[in-house]
Amino acid sequence: MTDTAPDWETTPLGSYRAVRASLTTGRPAAVATVTNVDGSAYRRPGAKLVVSATGDSTGAVTAGCLEDSVADIAAGVVESGDPRTERFDLTNDAEGVWGMGLGCNGVIDLLVEPVDESFRPAVEELDAKRAVTLLTVVASTDPTVSVGDRTTLTEDDDHVATERPGLPSAVVDALGDAVADARTADRSTTVTVDTDAGTVDVFVDVLTPAPDLLVFGRQRDVAPVARLGREAGFRVRVVTGRGGQADTDRFPDAHEVVPTRAPDIASVVDAPEHTYALLMSHNFVDDRVALESLLTTDVPYIGLMGPRKRFEEMREEFAEEGTSLTTADLDRIATPVGLDIGGDHPTQIALSAVAEALAVHNGRSGGRLTDSSGPIHGRPSRE
Amino acid sequence: MTDTAPDWETTPLGSYRAVRASLTTGRPAAVATVTNVDGSAYRRPGAKLVVSATGDSTGAVTAGCLEDSVADIAAGVVESGDPRTERFDLTNDAEGVWGMGLGCNGVIDLLVEPVDESFRPAVEELDAKRAVTLLTVVASTDPTVSVGDRTTLTEDDDHVATERPGLPSAVVDALGDAVADARTADRSTTVTVDTDAGTVDVFVDVLTPAPDLLVFGRQRDVAPVARLGREAGFRVRVVTGRGGQADTDRFPDAHEVVPTRAPDIASVVDAPEHTYALLMSHNFVDDRVALESLLTTDVPYIGLMGPRKRFEEMREEFAEEGTSLTTADLDRIATPVGLDIGGDHPTQIALSAVAEALAVHNGRSGGRLTDSSGPIHGRPSRE
Repeated sequence: MTDTAPDWETTPLGSYRAVRASLTTGRPAAVATVTNVDGSAYRRPGAKLVVSATGDSTGAVTAGCLEDSVADIAAGVVESGDPRTERFDLTNDAEGVWGMGLGCNGVIDLLVEPVDESFRPAVEELDAKRAVTLLTVVASTDPTVSVGDRTTLTEDDDHVATERPGLPSAVVDALGDAVADARTADRSTTVTVDTDAGTVDVFVDVLTPAPDLLVFGRQRDVAPVARLGREAGFRVRVVTGRGGQADTDRFPDAHEVVPTRAPDIASVVDAPEHTYALLMSHNFVDDRVALESLLTTDVPYIGLMGPRKRFEEMREEFAEEGTSLTTADLDRIATPVGLDIGGDHPTQIALSAVAEALAVHNGRSGGRLTDSSGPIHGRPSRE
Repeated sequence: MTDTAPDWETTPLGSYRAVRASLTTGRPAAVATVTNVDGSAYRRPGAKLVVSATGDSTGAVTAGCLEDSVADIAAGVVESGDPRTERFDLTNDAEGVWGMGLGCNGVIDLLVEPVDESFRPAVEELDAKRAVTLLTVVASTDPTVSVGDRTTLTEDDDHVATERPGLPSAVVDALGDAVADARTADRSTTVTVDTDAGTVDVFVDVLTPAPDLLVFGRQRDVAPVARLGREAGFRVRVVTGRGGQADTDRFPDAHEVVPTRAPDIASVVDAPEHTYALLMSHNFVDDRVALESLLTTDVPYIGLMGPRKRFEEMREEFAEEGTSLTTADLDRIATPVGLDIGGDHPTQIALSAVAEALAVHNGRSGGRLTDSSGPIHGRPSRE
């Protein structure tokens, strides 16, 4: 099973799998991470490019303008084994648009480091669907601290250091508020800490587990949902009553095809708070039973394909059984499913549903960015 | 160049191209069209499945439950050359959910007809980016009128009949209001007309040209936009300053790669009212010049990648040159581009931008359907 999207386009799930593959197979690789950008950039701090010793690369640090240069640097890092930083100044003063670029001008700072055991705790935490924060030194005037020194923080704030030297505990302590803020905002950022012997710049890299897209159904319309869900960065799990090789072949873009009956669907949800469910069996009873099962879990989103009245009918059946849906239940149920983009073709429906699941995952409401980001249209004309 | 999406998932553009291919090559094919659904359906009236004489099929009339049966019927129609209708009653009374299905129960009426010269006027109009309406008889108690009789209406309301008998002009006249409503709503529908000798059911099929997605740029992030744009039903035209085979290879999902410099981009817009533009060269000057050029056309949408302040900078330069943007100009410019779904990864950005272009094309706002379709959350609890 391969990723549908070309590797340059990969989401964090793809980057993380490339790192894990290097650790598992022992095939050397390097990771380049954006640690800072000056001006606006196409990618934000935390964006990663993983380069194997054979030159294969996964991920992106710009819109495509630096990847070749970075691959060369990564090859050197794989050889030396030493983490390093690199600044790319793509400022194009001739055009007088400093800071207005999108990754092909402006200034971008990168940390380029070998995949070594210092990544293993992060991979293990992410595998277990737990968030993790990497604290990595990217600059230091303190002689006791070097670029690449790393402490990994688990969700429970355990400090883990493996292979590379950890950060001095005073530095980790000083980072407390910045780490909390970065986690809350889900934004990686570089923070400067004063020590007794100098200053240390630490890249606080917040890594969150890939969300699961749990798709209940086995009709053909599941296929574009699986494909677009995978491309959008979800780990896609298709739940079919049948399962088996036939269904695995039917949905080649799914990361996993799980044979489970509708009443038991809750039992296959292994990370509820990271799971976004889509019910699209096209069978009223199956969808209703699956919905009832999922409502016993803490999944934040249950998209129910079909018109509103279909859900109203389900709700009446719940009421007849004496089951009342709480406001919190109703807030998790999205029906009609999807963002309001029009179009009733299979790929358009899939696009709408996957976009909504992604929006909910990111705490967004859909709608047009141009309408929500401050006055342009309302501003009085200059002329 | 092949469609990325499997054929079952194809948009109207794909169905229309399959019909055109049959007319052009002379290879026989049949078209099945949904003419009516009872209850809610996965596909709406007008949805098409094109089946070639060799059994290849393009398109979908349900979520995947009927396609095999329909292909068999289509094979018979190819052989006989006679249009026919077929009703599928998938009502599943055992589950007591009549009308609540999504294409795998409920009642679906289909028109199955050979691809013949009666389709040619429609193909030619759509090729010229003009809408067209097919009026086709799907039932008749009038002995002078038969199933499959067809009159094609152009945008200018010329009546065209080719190969098959046209509809009596009294019937076409009687359909006037229904045709106008169907066009306005962009919804195909079946209408019953009384004649002197009986009643005639006419399927009013509104066909609109596929929208163009005009993408200006040649960085790697154009690739996922081209791919998702194609999947969503756009004819994708990538405009690069360079062009040539290198760029054609670079963007295999584009229907066309057009070599044109930024100041000349207006000259390649051949159907402005059907063109949705995305400016993503990542070069401030190129994007600004391309924007200025596109504003001289009637394109309804210009998505400008980058932060709001980048556009403000462009606007200042326009003002310094004495060019003032009108409110109508500003309403066409979308920046930041895309729907608000979060995520800054290449495919997520592409998903957001393509979803916005589709929403604008369909006159939608891109918000969550579950929030906009009547009270569920606000309704007092039954209990």
